[in-house]
Amino acid sequence: MTSDNATAYPVDTVNRVKRLHQRGAYDHATIHALLDGGMLCHVSYVIEGQPYCTPTLYWREGTRLYWHGSSASRMLRNLSNGEPACLAVTQLDSLVLARCGFNHSVDFRSVMVFGQARLVTDPAEKERALVMMVDRLFPHRTALLRQSSAQEIKATAVIAMDIERASAKVRTKGIGDNEEDYSLPIYAERIPVRTVLGKPEPCPRLLPGVERPHTLDPYREGRELEAALAEAYAASYATL
Amino acid sequence: MTSDNATAYPVDTVNRVKRLHQRGAYDHATIHALLDGGMLCHVSYVIEGQPYCTPTLYWREGTRLYWHGSSASRMLRNLSNGEPACLAVTQLDSLVLARCGFNHSVDFRSVMVFGQARLVTDPAEKERALVMMVDRLFPHRTALLRQSSAQEIKATAVIAMDIERASAKVRTKGIGDNEEDYSLPIYAERIPVRTVLGKPEPCPRLLPGVERPHTLDPYREGRELEAALAEAYAASYATL
Repeated sequence: MTSDNATAYPVDTVNRVKRLHQRGAYDHATIHALLDGGMLCHVSYVIEGQPYCTPTLYWREGTRLYWHGSSASRMLRNLSNGEPACLAVTQLDSLVLARCGFNHSVDFRSVMVFGQARLVTDPAEKERALVMMVDRLFPHRTALLRQSSAQEIKATAVIAMDIERASAKVRTKGIGDNEEDYSLPIYAERIPVRTVLGKPEPCPRLLPGVERPHTLDPYREGRELEAALAEAYAASYATL
Repeated sequence: MTSDNATAYPVDTVNRVKRLHQRGAYDHATIHALLDGGMLCHVSYVIEGQPYCTPTLYWREGTRLYWHGSSASRMLRNLSNGEPACLAVTQLDSLVLARCGFNHSVDFRSVMVFGQARLVTDPAEKERALVMMVDRLFPHRTALLRQSSAQEIKATAVIAMDIERASAKVRTKGIGDNEEDYSLPIYAERIPVRTVLGKPEPCPRLLPGVERPHTLDPYREGRELEAALAEAYAASYATL
C-alpha cells in the first residue's frame, strides 16, 4: 500500500490504523476504489450516548459520500444537523485456516470514513442525489423511468458527508503460519469467498417488447458484484 | 414474521423498527438464524462522542455474542468495562430495479443487537471462547491444531455482550411497483446476489499424506457461505 501525500486523507488519532499498521492505507486511490466497488455500508452514529449501527446504501462523489434513508428514520433525524458519523464498507475475500488457532484469519478489504453527516436540503443537490442514487448503480437509468412525484421526493431523505478522515485496511496474504509450524502434519487451506450476481429475473409483468437496456450490461450472471459496481460507477460518473 | 413472546427480545424505543415496521421481527428464531449464518459483523461504539464502526468476526452462544480483536485495538480497550455497543449483521439478497426511482430497492436481511460489551477476562471463559472462535466456523478443528501458546492467548482479546435488545429487518418482496406503473413500457428486474465459496486452496506446504478433514465438508466450492456457516455452527454447538 502506498500513500501519496498529495492525494491522501489526513491521518490522526481517530483514523490511524493501530493494529498491524502495515495493513493501513490513507491514499485516495485505495480508499475510493474500495468505496466504488461497494453499495452496502454500515453507518455508526450516537443518540444520547447509545451507539447505533445501521446498514444502508451509499455512493461517492469526489470526496463526499451520500447515503439513503427514509425521512422517518431515526438515524436521519438525528444526523440532520452535522452530527459525527463513521461509515464502514467491508469486503470478505477468503477464510484462512492455519496450523494454529492464532493464525486463523480472513483476507478482507475494509474502509472506515469519518465526517459530519448532514441532511441534504438544497433542492438542486437533492434532485441530483436522487438521480445518482439510481444511476450510480444503473448508468443513465433514471432517464428511462417514470418521473418521481413530489411526494416521493419528499419521502426520500439523502444524507451527505464530506470525508474528513478515512483509512483502509487490507489483508491479502492467505495462510501465514509460524515458520516452525509448517513442519507439523496439520491440514491448512484458504477458502475464497466471492459475492456474485445470479441470473437476472425480468419482472413477469413487463409489457410485450420491453427489452433489457444495454446500460445493464455490467450486471450479468456469475459476475462479481464488486466488478459490476465499479464498472457502473465509472460509466455513470464519466459523462457528468 | 412471527414474534413468540416467550422467546423474543424485549422491544422499546432503542430497537423498535420504525421505518416500514411490518418488516421488523424480534423473536429469537429469526434473530439467531441470521446471526448464525454470518461471521462478519460491524460493531459501533463511542469514544469521546465520536462513533466508530469496526468490522470484526463474531459468533453467538445462547443469548450472548462474542467477538474478536487484538488486545492492542482501540475498540477493545474502550469496551472492556461494559460499554454500550451495537452490532449489526447484514445479508444482501438482491438488487431490485423498479419502474420508478422511488421503488428501486434491495432485498436484504439484517439484524441489530444492543447490549453492554465487556472484555472476557475469566481464564476459563476465555479458553472456551478461543476454542469456539475457530470451532464455530470449523467444527472440532481446534483439537487438530498446534496448541496455543500463553503469549498467543494473551495477545488475543475476546469481547462478550449479552443481548439486551435486538431487531431483525427483512425485505424479500423483489419488485413492488405502484399498480398503475405496471402499464408503463419500462424494463424492471430483480438481480439475485449470493456470497459463495470458491474452490478451497490447500496450503502448498502441506506435509505428504495430510488430507482435508471431513469436518470441513460444509465448505465446498459453489456453496453459499451462509449455508456453510449455519451447518458448521449447528455441528459445533450440537455436541457441547
